[in-house]
Amino acid sequence: MERKSVSKATLGRIPRYLAYLKELSLDKTPFISATALARELMLGEVQVRKDLAAISGAGRPRLGYETELLIQQLEDCLGYNRLTNAVLVGAGRLGRALLQYDGFEHFGVKIAAAFDSNDRVINFDSKTEILPMHQFENYCKEHSVSIGIITVGEGSAQDVCDQMVKSGITAIWNFAPCRLQVPDGVLLQNENLALSLAHLRNQFVAHSRQLKK
Amino acid sequence: MERKSVSKATLGRIPRYLAYLKELSLDKTPFISATALARELMLGEVQVRKDLAAISGAGRPRLGYETELLIQQLEDCLGYNRLTNAVLVGAGRLGRALLQYDGFEHFGVKIAAAFDSNDRVINFDSKTEILPMHQFENYCKEHSVSIGIITVGEGSAQDVCDQMVKSGITAIWNFAPCRLQVPDGVLLQNENLALSLAHLRNQFVAHSRQLKK
Repeated sequence: MERKSVSKATLGRIPRYLAYLKELSLDKTPFISATALARELMLGEVQVRKDLAAISGAGRPRLGYETELLIQQLEDCLGYNRLTNAVLVGAGRLGRALLQYDGFEHFGVKIAAAFDSNDRVINFDSKTEILPMHQFENYCKEHSVSIGIITVGEGSAQDVCDQMVKSGITAIWNFAPCRLQVPDGVLLQNENLALSLAHLRNQFVAHSRQLKK
Repeated sequence: MERKSVSKATLGRIPRYLAYLKELSLDKTPFISATALARELMLGEVQVRKDLAAISGAGRPRLGYETELLIQQLEDCLGYNRLTNAVLVGAGRLGRALLQYDGFEHFGVKIAAAFDSNDRVINFDSKTEILPMHQFENYCKEHSVSIGIITVGEGSAQDVCDQMVKSGITAIWNFAPCRLQVPDGVLLQNENLALSLAHLRNQFVAHSRQLKK
């Protein structure tokens, strides 16, 4: 089956599916149905059915999914067996916070290096190398970097974005609060933290008004 | 009109609407239609119509929206005139990155103080006060804090969440990679950065496979 991109919510449930499936004895449970998995994990059956269909296709009638194959496909979906290289540009506070974040590799992404134009942060104590910008393009090409993370300010984000595209990066995760222009074929995902918080505030305000009624 | 919670995408467009509307002379443009606004900002008309309907109701037939009132309602929606107080618990790297983030007040939220159980970060140089945890409950009650931001590790997130609920907080923004239990009536918004990156990676992988076909 040719796998398509799955939803973020589905991705988020994969670690739970994997944790459960890996506890099973393959001898005793060579097949597992979406129904059984949903019951064990106390999730909705429709949801689990959709998740597994998106990742593994239809399953066998009356048997369900071959457990070993399903584990493999779930892991593949998270990139367990093949980490994708990412670089981060802008090793300020937010950038460094992301560098310290442990969770990325569990989801198939390795931040291979970070870059900054400010010499003072170049040798900042970090488990990930922080390199000067003039090495950026070569580094990306040599290490087959596919994902770029932008944590510079609004003013230089488009420049950094252009450099990423020029260096062969085709997926960009942008934290700068501005709209970036990318050519066709380059994926752009914006992460506006202020907007997330604003959304929570807005729900809170609407909710409080409801209560006062 | 009793305002309901609006979508995150709508919220994200409000600053652009405001920037444009505030440039207008109210004498010359006492009313503005969704059509005109869409054209000026090069946005889809249906989208703008929906946004304004969610925020300001129906507008007047043939005239559109009263410009001055619309500005007021858009600002109100973003909390311009009444900042909501938030506190952050966990002044590690990610917490401190959020404290440094400038965008929140433009979206109606003020991080009034941060808390940490580690004495070493208490006096960390920051424009926001970092206080010890034993002051948490009193502080929240005295300052009518409504929003709590959790940037501690997975291990202590539920404890912090419980303390927030006990201190009267009713909207929680959680960065810890775990599922928190909150009582009914408390809003919980999870921010899983690893999952966002995983989603981008997954789209990238699916996209590359398409290209290879």
